[in-house]
Amino acid sequence: MYNLLKGKKGIIFGALNNMSLAWKVAERAYEEGAEIVLTNTPISLRFGDIEELAKKCNTIVIPADATSIEDLENLIDKAMEYFGGKFDFILHSVAMSMNVRKGKSYDNLNYNYLNKTLDISAISFHKVLQVAKKKDAINDWGSVLALSYVAAQRTLYGYNDMADAKAMLESIARSFGYIYGREKKIRVNTISQSPTLTTAGSGVKGIDGLLDFTERMSPLGNATADEFADFCITLFSDLTRKVTMQNLFHDGGFSSMGMSLRAMTMYNQALDNPKEPDGFDI
Amino acid sequence: MYNLLKGKKGIIFGALNNMSLAWKVAERAYEEGAEIVLTNTPISLRFGDIEELAKKCNTIVIPADATSIEDLENLIDKAMEYFGGKFDFILHSVAMSMNVRKGKSYDNLNYNYLNKTLDISAISFHKVLQVAKKKDAINDWGSVLALSYVAAQRTLYGYNDMADAKAMLESIARSFGYIYGREKKIRVNTISQSPTLTTAGSGVKGIDGLLDFTERMSPLGNATADEFADFCITLFSDLTRKVTMQNLFHDGGFSSMGMSLRAMTMYNQALDNPKEPDGFDI
Amino acid sequence: MYNLLKGKKGIIFGALNNMSLAWKVAERAYEEGAEIVLTNTPISLRFGDIEELAKKCNTIVIPADATSIEDLENLIDKAMEYFGGKFDFILHSVAMSMNVRKGKSYDNLNYNYLNKTLDISAISFHKVLQVAKKKDAINDWGSVLALSYVAAQRTLYGYNDMADAKAMLESIARSFGYIYGREKKIRVNTISQSPTLTTAGSGVKGIDGLLDFTERMSPLGNATADEFADFCITLFSDLTRKVTMQNLFHDGGFSSMGMSLRAMTMYNQALDNPKEPDGFDI
Amino acid sequence: MYNLLKGKKGIIFGALNNMSLAWKVAERAYEEGAEIVLTNTPISLRFGDIEELAKKCNTIVIPADATSIEDLENLIDKAMEYFGGKFDFILHSVAMSMNVRKGKSYDNLNYNYLNKTLDISAISFHKVLQVAKKKDAINDWGSVLALSYVAAQRTLYGYNDMADAKAMLESIARSFGYIYGREKKIRVNTISQSPTLTTAGSGVKGIDGLLDFTERMSPLGNATADEFADFCITLFSDLTRKVTMQNLFHDGGFSSMGMSLRAMTMYNQALDNPKEPDGFDI
Repeated sequence: MYNLLKGKKGIIFGALNNMSLAWKVAERAYEEGAEIVLTNTPISLRFGDIEELAKKCNTIVIPADATSIEDLENLIDKAMEYFGGKFDFILHSVAMSMNVRKGKSYDNLNYNYLNKTLDISAISFHKVLQVAKKKDAINDWGSVLALSYVAAQRTLYGYNDMADAKAMLESIARSFGYIYGREKKIRVNTISQSPTLTTAGSGVKGIDGLLDFTERMSPLGNATADEFADFCITLFSDLTRKVTMQNLFHDGGFSSMGMSLRAMTMYNQALDNPKEPDGFDI
Repeated sequence: MYNLLKGKKGIIFGALNNMSLAWKVAERAYEEGAEIVLTNTPISLRFGDIEELAKKCNTIVIPADATSIEDLENLIDKAMEYFGGKFDFILHSVAMSMNVRKGKSYDNLNYNYLNKTLDISAISFHKVLQVAKKKDAINDWGSVLALSYVAAQRTLYGYNDMADAKAMLESIARSFGYIYGREKKIRVNTISQSPTLTTAGSGVKGIDGLLDFTERMSPLGNATADEFADFCITLFSDLTRKVTMQNLFHDGGFSSMGMSLRAMTMYNQALDNPKEPDGFDI
Repeated sequence: MYNLLKGKKGIIFGALNNMSLAWKVAERAYEEGAEIVLTNTPISLRFGDIEELAKKCNTIVIPADATSIEDLENLIDKAMEYFGGKFDFILHSVAMSMNVRKGKSYDNLNYNYLNKTLDISAISFHKVLQVAKKKDAINDWGSVLALSYVAAQRTLYGYNDMADAKAMLESIARSFGYIYGREKKIRVNTISQSPTLTTAGSGVKGIDGLLDFTERMSPLGNATADEFADFCITLFSDLTRKVTMQNLFHDGGFSSMGMSLRAMTMYNQALDNPKEPDGFDI
Repeated sequence: MYNLLKGKKGIIFGALNNMSLAWKVAERAYEEGAEIVLTNTPISLRFGDIEELAKKCNTIVIPADATSIEDLENLIDKAMEYFGGKFDFILHSVAMSMNVRKGKSYDNLNYNYLNKTLDISAISFHKVLQVAKKKDAINDWGSVLALSYVAAQRTLYGYNDMADAKAMLESIARSFGYIYGREKKIRVNTISQSPTLTTAGSGVKGIDGLLDFTERMSPLGNATADEFADFCITLFSDLTRKVTMQNLFHDGGFSSMGMSLRAMTMYNQALDNPKEPDGFDI
């Protein structure tokens, strides 16, 4: 609508279906004049609707497992071929925890699963950056974003080892942001988004209550996927060139709230009739 | 019980009655071998029980309005006379908001009241430090503490202009901590304490619900006044000499929580029957 | 260039001359299609070049002392008259410390000056917000920004009581952001900008060395006034609607750096020939 | 000297020689009346002087690779046998990066090395906690500490993938602190210590310049290993029971400094003769 990304090119990881945050970002980036390339794991390609998105955005899908250097090298090569040269931005929206999926509580972690959580949800971001830098694939003043969550700072029951992965992800953004900034003027940031009902998010236990709570705690309400996409556009644009190594909260104010009147009004209803959890299985 | 403060001397601001945080600190400091001097405003002396505390701690009370340089100079002079020289620690537990007391909401502040809030709750801390430094009243490696609250970082409805005062208080601890550290090796910190049912705290609207919420959010529960006193002792002792310019959370973990299972279990009871606040008067 | 602010209207505080951050924001906002109103204190109007800016931006200047409720009421009334109704954004770029100007060190503050520092640099922001809200002057989903600095989190010698004012300013953004968000969907944020050589900034002692240090510490270098303006545009636009109660670092990465190789290379030159300050007068 | 840990028992990981932070903690804990058990990897036992420490502290050494569940189970079993039951505290001071050792820069990481860095420096902490909890090995109100560094928040060139490991370590302290707190009243914290010249620390490139810089930036100077030990004692004691899920800076104020006069005085010497790094190999 504004041509904010006119002439820019970028790779978007993690679009599965039209509930995905990455899906909305792809649509908005295309609207704003960017050329994009989509990527996801082979298995996600099979179960999701990404080809539909590719059509909408007049582009291609290049399958890649973001934990595989080989796949990432192929992705970057193919994308550069498609774009006819370097590109300008990347969105990393990739996360998965087998411990969460399999209902392993945080004091009963399976360490193979934990390694997978870290590899998929954090280290893959480093791999993307390292491969891109080695191939000198991103133009000066490019912008790289990854999706984070407030669990990196504050513990939410049930979010499990994903909290540790997000903390590491944000650290990678700082660590690589320093290197990529000093040498190529490329900025690296994370966005800490409100909980959003995506296919991935819907697996988190007790998500309904949490969404109600964060909605009432946040003075502007939870941020939607569409709003997330809008915010990403500004961070890919040339108007935010000196923002780097930051974790940016996009959450309607939740991260700066201790207690809102709306949330407290809900909570107070239970005061006369206090109830304890049925054990601590998460 | 441990003689942690044997041979140390200090001034304690803000004890009113046996619910006061400062009261407990005075008792514990005395138990740990410290000599102390108590101080509070003339009006607090009249309404509180501080003489009882002075007897318990075998000491004197020197009245002082912490916003008055003259009073503070007199206090420091008298205290040094009483101690026979320099002293080692100060606790600043002084805060008041007329906007809260008079029910002025944050979007309808009385600016004279706001000035008073700042003067009493934040600037007084600077005055104490500046007067003490000018009089070279504190021994090398001394320790100065002030009482803060998580509202300095995260907004809690109804806490009002006190949030801004606490943010400023924590900044003063950093700013003066730099100066006092480099020149006299004196450390300056704030403790961010759980909400506690003191005479002051009980004026905050909706404090019961909030205390229940923070109790259930904090894995160790709210920190009590006795526990606060214990923590202060460690920070006055010689065992924490290199901790300075910090805001230390003493809150059972609340500050690092996003959502606990116990708090969510309470909250979820209201989900079937959502309720909105009756307007936004705070 | 993008029409990002087409149809939007806003008030810009604090433009003095073409080195001012606010000056650049005014120009950029106008370029992006906004209608603006300029304001500054009567004395600044006399010494600065704001009329030149008004011509460029095809608008008017309404004098106002941001510490005066009366002036602010008049400003808002006149601006609404000029705009023909409500407006959409405000930039607050107002700060001054007499303690800095008069060379009073932080352990020798003049408390009347401190009150002025707070009134001009922090409380004025609350007054602007309170007057605007009382007059229901800002459209839903409007955006209010104030200028901050990393001294709110980390002490820089010589920045003096302005650090405390900035800490309070950021707290006001959170506190009022909660209220304004829940009731009017208006967001309130601060931008923590690199040190910039403005007329105001050039008064800070040792600014040259500091600028060199922050330039070499920041992987992307210091953010310029032009870049600041670009960033403000994104935050006034509709693309950042769910960002509120945040302090956003716009500093080339400085805030997330502990030590860069470039800065350390400079520092290491002094290792063989260490030098101490000539006393601590700041 | 104060009997602060009288009757308490604990396990200390990571003492190598008398430069080790953990060594000092062991000595001080013993002095304060604690019974301790020492542990380190078999290879460290061979190269270090830990048997000397065991003699001093009148205790035993139980070899354990902290990344091995089997070793940790054996350690906890043997320690409980030695103690005759549960114990009260743990110090985790374990970290290693092969990427640092082998001079792999952060944009050229070996991912097998990274996995090792994480396993040794962060995941081992989770394993210690998980094994201890499963065996119900720690008394109620026990205290668990791990050693961190400011690189978890702010990038320091050359600290490499250890920064990401420390960020994850601090997250684990929060995540497990929630679980262990709610169920067993056990607190979990990290201490972010000044850079210290230990055998481990001396491997970090450019450590001399960095130590000089942090010494001059910190108003109280760098914290020593002895001071670290003192601080740990307070956190193992009963006086800090409600401090949990925190990262506590023990650094002479460094973490709250933006620029000190002493550091700037050094830096300014280079201004007339600016020098750039010889490339960016770290």
